[in-house]
Amino acid sequence: MTATSDLDDSFHVFDTTLRDGAQREGINLTVADKLAIARHLDDFGVGFIEGGWPGANPRDTEFFARAGQEIDFRHAQLVAFGSTRRAGTTADQDPQVRALLESGAPVITLVAKSHDRHVELALRTTLDENLAMVGDTVSFLKEQGRRVFIDCEHFFDGYRANPEYAKAVVRTASEAGADVVVLCDTNGGMLPAQIQAVVSTVLADTGARLGIHAQDDTGCAVANTLAAVDAGATHVQCTANGYGERVGNANLFPVVAALELKYGKQVLPEGHLQEMTRISHAIAEVVNLTPSTHQPYVGLSAFAHKAGLHASAIKVDPDLYQHIDPEQVGNTMRMLVSDMAGRASIELKGKELGVDLGGDRELVGRVVERVKERELKGYTYEAADASFELLLRAEVQGGPLSYFEVESWRAIVEDRPDGSHANEATVKLWAKGERIVATAEGNGPVNALDRSLRVGLEKIYPQLAKLELVDYKVRILEGKHGTNSTTRVLISTSDGTGEWSTVGVADNVIAASWQALEDAYTYGLLRAGVAPAE
Amino acid sequence: MTATSDLDDSFHVFDTTLRDGAQREGINLTVADKLAIARHLDDFGVGFIEGGWPGANPRDTEFFARAGQEIDFRHAQLVAFGSTRRAGTTADQDPQVRALLESGAPVITLVAKSHDRHVELALRTTLDENLAMVGDTVSFLKEQGRRVFIDCEHFFDGYRANPEYAKAVVRTASEAGADVVVLCDTNGGMLPAQIQAVVSTVLADTGARLGIHAQDDTGCAVANTLAAVDAGATHVQCTANGYGERVGNANLFPVVAALELKYGKQVLPEGHLQEMTRISHAIAEVVNLTPSTHQPYVGLSAFAHKAGLHASAIKVDPDLYQHIDPEQVGNTMRMLVSDMAGRASIELKGKELGVDLGGDRELVGRVVERVKERELKGYTYEAADASFELLLRAEVQGGPLSYFEVESWRAIVEDRPDGSHANEATVKLWAKGERIVATAEGNGPVNALDRSLRVGLEKIYPQLAKLELVDYKVRILEGKHGTNSTTRVLISTSDGTGEWSTVGVADNVIAASWQALEDAYTYGLLRAGVAPAE
Repeated sequence: MTATSDLDDSFHVFDTTLRDGAQREGINLTVADKLAIARHLDDFGVGFIEGGWPGANPRDTEFFARAGQEIDFRHAQLVAFGSTRRAGTTADQDPQVRALLESGAPVITLVAKSHDRHVELALRTTLDENLAMVGDTVSFLKEQGRRVFIDCEHFFDGYRANPEYAKAVVRTASEAGADVVVLCDTNGGMLPAQIQAVVSTVLADTGARLGIHAQDDTGCAVANTLAAVDAGATHVQCTANGYGERVGNANLFPVVAALELKYGKQVLPEGHLQEMTRISHAIAEVVNLTPSTHQPYVGLSAFAHKAGLHASAIKVDPDLYQHIDPEQVGNTMRMLVSDMAGRASIELKGKELGVDLGGDRELVGRVVERVKERELKGYTYEAADASFELLLRAEVQGGPLSYFEVESWRAIVEDRPDGSHANEATVKLWAKGERIVATAEGNGPVNALDRSLRVGLEKIYPQLAKLELVDYKVRILEGKHGTNSTTRVLISTSDGTGEWSTVGVADNVIAASWQALEDAYTYGLLRAGVAPAE
Repeated sequence: MTATSDLDDSFHVFDTTLRDGAQREGINLTVADKLAIARHLDDFGVGFIEGGWPGANPRDTEFFARAGQEIDFRHAQLVAFGSTRRAGTTADQDPQVRALLESGAPVITLVAKSHDRHVELALRTTLDENLAMVGDTVSFLKEQGRRVFIDCEHFFDGYRANPEYAKAVVRTASEAGADVVVLCDTNGGMLPAQIQAVVSTVLADTGARLGIHAQDDTGCAVANTLAAVDAGATHVQCTANGYGERVGNANLFPVVAALELKYGKQVLPEGHLQEMTRISHAIAEVVNLTPSTHQPYVGLSAFAHKAGLHASAIKVDPDLYQHIDPEQVGNTMRMLVSDMAGRASIELKGKELGVDLGGDRELVGRVVERVKERELKGYTYEAADASFELLLRAEVQGGPLSYFEVESWRAIVEDRPDGSHANEATVKLWAKGERIVATAEGNGPVNALDRSLRVGLEKIYPQLAKLELVDYKVRILEGKHGTNSTTRVLISTSDGTGEWSTVGVADNVIAASWQALEDAYTYGLLRAGVAPAE
């Protein structure tokens, strides 16, 4: 479990996704999830991974036991989170403090109260006893050979209410041997100028090594973290994708990217920043949240250009329109197809897809019109490259690409007395002059349709055997009309070497899925180099 | 179209949702959408609404024609966006400049190049001609009686490359009569400290009235906007919900909230800040994007508390755990039910729902266990209050609340030769000792199930006639297993006086929808005061 970090100790990137990030509404991590995320964070190269509160719940206790055995950390040190001892006892006799030691974590973060009213109203003890609790617990854990960081909860609000007491907590912790004293904007109400002023003063007055823990309630958590660094903090606490309670925490990714790319400060092992987009999306997948398309640096849209105005200039020099090269963070520039895109975008997109529009103005105009018309109905081609390419090719060759012709399909869902469901679909279609009728069951109606289509077509096109549906998204387009809404389905399909996305829009989810499946299979055959039927 | 703003001209809140915001990937606004958003923004009380680029596309031209006639602006002035004249012509003969005048907008924003390389490579003219283009166009439009704001595109990158030229553009615009010179971080790569330094210097060196336009590529757009204000800018350009190209623009809502609540600066008409949450969600609905649950101030989660630790302290004093009173921005504090919530949360939640748990520790423990167990299967009670209340009541009374018993149901979706679909559902159930078999068609399988359930039950429970499905959300829980995934459905139902949400989880979307429908109808009957069957 010992880490072999290739960075020195002068600056800490401290991740608390597994502890504070897990407080986000909608996140519910299993031990397996936590282990998977810890591996991703270690891959990314953060210095510290706060894993949870051992002893507070069985899940966190199990995580520490298993992380120590199952993960061979290459960069990160594992951190256990806990609290200072209770009032009126000693640190060595407090079972909560003992659980921290028993976790085996080499580093311990202790949360401490630093706001006088919180000491009195929430902790219900005296200001002096709180200082003793901080000093005792730090000394005890240091004597046991652990590194100790102190999270001063509600520090900035506390500093406003009683700056002398807030600073006394910092001094007490530091004098007792805490390696870093972390100033926390727990309620997240601060702005960068305030953070910078307070951190500067506390640093000058106490001389402690300071860290920052910012919450995003004003939308300034990244800037607040950087403001603290500007003022001399050398330890930043963040969470992947900004997950956290209420609005969230300071987002690890833009903080690290700013430090590396804007400050020119190496805070990750060499070359690891390029893994950022992948790591961000992988963690989103583990916590089961759709990756935010509009997240700085790593979002699908972060380097996407839509405006016709920009598109024509990007042809001249992409660097004029990007603050960094997206490859530095493992992302890519994308040209978007939408009805705001002018001819220049469509031509660039055609080139990207390998379809030569040959400067044919009339053809490009027809494609623009067709996209507008379909987008009005609810289609979106920004996220469905394969459906766009099929549309483009249909315009180029004067008719849709066709490998099969559908006569009809039907899906039936029926519940069974035991609470399970029967899902059955039948498709009737023509391919290469043959009429095919295929029926299949599935674990849902879309799965049953997918299987029946595949069963039917594989006889004619064995290439389809490799195809696999890897993602399926449903979007209800008019949220205020209940089940009367239009439904859009996006499907991602893989053939083992690449992935493509297709779109379907209809008055119901099954029919929309069917359309996206038809496009997915058609595109799969095109990719496999099969010649379409005449 | 004249505005009667109750704020003076010393500080401008300028919204560009309809122009720059519309560049966001996934947004595609109709003229009706633009008119609806303009009304919401005027209600909110912004000073300026940039409506688009009249003349550049028929949609924007139509918007200006109709906005002038159809909207009686109470606070905002309408702004037309356009460009400085082309090189080698005069402003009065440039059709693009004339279209700006013809829009009838009292205020015009002109985009101007201020980065020397952009002038040369994208505009393909000389640095001097660009200055002449700025000066001429501003003078001409001022002579025509319009207010003129200048957007200096790529200002901060340009200032880094050639500070003297960037400042020359500011001076030229200001001397020609521009009312505000807006410094734009078009590529969004800046950090607050850089913005503050540049704005201070430019203000000192030129004396022009300055504005700020920030993009969120570093995750600092809100902080960058506030840094410019700190440095003396008196005009902020923002978009509702931060919509905009790539990552997005500075988000109007946290910027305005910071100015009003943190700076104590009145920038909206008295009392309007309380409309912020409503306006944010209403605009999201018009642009057809799900409101971000984690948006500062206005997100559903912005004042939501989950942690057991906090929940017990919130009982003591909520203000210790909130940076502002959520009512100041029209939002509310929420207690979340999840397996991280301890007993204190469940008790508080019970109180909120009017179910007395009477300090029954054993009962509360059972509810906590039941929630954990269901959440493991994919249920979520954070967003499904009604399903949670049914679960809670089932534990209190020792069995589920039952108004009807389902024998079986079936849904069939079939395509027709004309491309339309037949959706039919049959339910068989028992209520008050009677066996009911009902069949109904719908425009989708869920709608057909909803109707058949209603047709069947209305005979017994006429109270159900008022119920309406108002929202329907589908979430695929394991995105990497294609159509084999678990599906979660959330349904919102209204009875005209209130709304409630229910959840269903199953291996397919139809079965999950059925569960959520069953809960929705059960809760509707409970709300209507109907006594459950024994």
